[in-house]
Amino acid sequence: MTGFSPEELQLAARNSGMPLEAMRWDVTPVGLHYLLIHYDVPLVEPSGWRLSIGGAVSAPCELSLDDLRGRAVETRAVTMECAGNGRARLAPRPVSQPWLHEAVGTGEWTGTPLAGVLEDAGISSGAVDVVFTGLDRGVEGGEEQHYARALSVTDALRDEVLLAWGLNGMPLPPQHGFPLRLIVPGWYGMTSVKWLSRIDVIDRAFDGYQQREAYRMRATEDDPGVPVTRMAPRALMVPPGIPEFMSRRRHLPAGPVELFGRAWSGNGTIADVEVSVDGGASWAWASLEPEAGPFAWRGWRFAWNAVPGEFELCCRCSDSSGARQPVEAAWNVGGYANTSVQRVAVTVTVTEGPLTR
Amino acid sequence: MTGFSPEELQLAARNSGMPLEAMRWDVTPVGLHYLLIHYDVPLVEPSGWRLSIGGAVSAPCELSLDDLRGRAVETRAVTMECAGNGRARLAPRPVSQPWLHEAVGTGEWTGTPLAGVLEDAGISSGAVDVVFTGLDRGVEGGEEQHYARALSVTDALRDEVLLAWGLNGMPLPPQHGFPLRLIVPGWYGMTSVKWLSRIDVIDRAFDGYQQREAYRMRATEDDPGVPVTRMAPRALMVPPGIPEFMSRRRHLPAGPVELFGRAWSGNGTIADVEVSVDGGASWAWASLEPEAGPFAWRGWRFAWNAVPGEFELCCRCSDSSGARQPVEAAWNVGGYANTSVQRVAVTVTVTEGPLTR
Repeated sequence: MTGFSPEELQLAARNSGMPLEAMRWDVTPVGLHYLLIHYDVPLVEPSGWRLSIGGAVSAPCELSLDDLRGRAVETRAVTMECAGNGRARLAPRPVSQPWLHEAVGTGEWTGTPLAGVLEDAGISSGAVDVVFTGLDRGVEGGEEQHYARALSVTDALRDEVLLAWGLNGMPLPPQHGFPLRLIVPGWYGMTSVKWLSRIDVIDRAFDGYQQREAYRMRATEDDPGVPVTRMAPRALMVPPGIPEFMSRRRHLPAGPVELFGRAWSGNGTIADVEVSVDGGASWAWASLEPEAGPFAWRGWRFAWNAVPGEFELCCRCSDSSGARQPVEAAWNVGGYANTSVQRVAVTVTVTEGPLTR
Repeated sequence: MTGFSPEELQLAARNSGMPLEAMRWDVTPVGLHYLLIHYDVPLVEPSGWRLSIGGAVSAPCELSLDDLRGRAVETRAVTMECAGNGRARLAPRPVSQPWLHEAVGTGEWTGTPLAGVLEDAGISSGAVDVVFTGLDRGVEGGEEQHYARALSVTDALRDEVLLAWGLNGMPLPPQHGFPLRLIVPGWYGMTSVKWLSRIDVIDRAFDGYQQREAYRMRATEDDPGVPVTRMAPRALMVPPGIPEFMSRRRHLPAGPVELFGRAWSGNGTIADVEVSVDGGASWAWASLEPEAGPFAWRGWRFAWNAVPGEFELCCRCSDSSGARQPVEAAWNVGGYANTSVQRVAVTVTVTEGPLTR
């Protein structure tokens, strides 16, 4: 990796990754879930806040938080990943938030199904997209904008899509979209618009910046590309042993070690996880923990008998759609969905001490 | 700033800053407070956890969380800052966690005074230091270690020092030291040891790595230096207007703007805050909000009539001890306590729209 720019560092200082040891928790504690915040976290006074629903609907309305809480309530465990996770490991490196591996987390989101709200508003017959607009505002690609993204009417009406006011049994924290956000299980996080203020049903494809320019898989700058949508399969491991502060290289004593990690995909359930302890030269199957729901990551374990030496540990997975995580993912202009396998450098030493593994 | 190394980026991806707009909150919401975690966040089973108190005491003991909760309970608002805040703005840049400005936060910490616990343990007459050891373990400076720091007996017995199990009315989150941490108001954060497991009273000065090698103000590599202790005075502002995503440059419309920020010091209360809108060429007084307690940051406001153009906004403060924040702080080997003033680049434009300021 070549030197990171001050602009990249500014982004890394604002946005928060999930330290990978936090995969130990089935549900990521608040404050450990990743955060990608395009502009500023808005300070919202909930009593004055309303969700406006308008556009191509028969019954436009404004809903308060109490109105929404009075509807059907669901809680779903959802693994969410930033579309840019892995960007900093691409070469040449697309310049934006420089994630390595850590832009992921699993929340228990509580809210009401979007479908019911849209059905009550009465979607018009010619409707194409449903646009979600947040209160966060900034300049990007030369355009001043509120953050906004759209789903097709079909995707917006899926059962699992929520308007969420709760995370892990608490009100949404400000940084996760207080008082209300969209949660689109299975999709990369850019879709789950935070600080939601408007839902507009439109009779054409949405052409806002975040849909038209950002979040597209492009092979070259001139390629119109295809939209970034659902999460590609990815497995990550909790780095074993203990870290060296600066290099983050791992140290552990020789002997049996249980490697542990998580795997997820937005296109199906996890079918298998493989582990390599020799940098990808050979692979072996990990054992899978029971599924934790259709949209949450799945735990896996691998017994490794570590002998003294230097090792590079890797993991990869496949999902029920047949998609398999590549050892090296294809480069793209925006640096999205880089699921190239994680490589964990480990030094195993002979030791007499009772070191924790 | 020259290019940042992959090692610096790895640290920035793990450790979390507080986006500066979060200064809007008197008490920083969980998940927005800064986090500097030397090694890994340990996963602690609270039922088996005990705090061991030993060494030069007449009554060594092991305390459970219930034992501690049964003692006197206090809640204190405490502003905590990483000693390395500002490191990335030094030239040449000391290589470690590359903080710009954002390594700060204010928590409402709940716990029991350490002094009472130490008095019940009976500190021996020849005691010199009180050593606090966490469960987090790693390799640093070539030494394998549990994170450990000490206070002099005199500092450890100060009324305001807490053994804390709560943050903002909730149990400590894992990343803030669950189930128990030390809170030393007024000191840089390295002192407030997380995941506390042992307190040892010793009859000599503590010579552990984090006291002997790290966290010393050294002019050169050969300088033994002096310990980093209390927070130097610092004022920061919430960047006004809206950001450009990549550069974080601020944009706002011409007209009256209220600049807002916070100031704090570990050596006294905040005496004054000054603001410059011309990059430090001239300064004017900000108005101070009421004090929020002896150890919490103080709000300040400044009315600026923004006219179209390019500006560099700055702020600085002084405290009741007479210490004044420098425009440029002196360089040091570890990159600690760089309180050189914040510089916020702002573009003010003529506009007809109802832009939020």
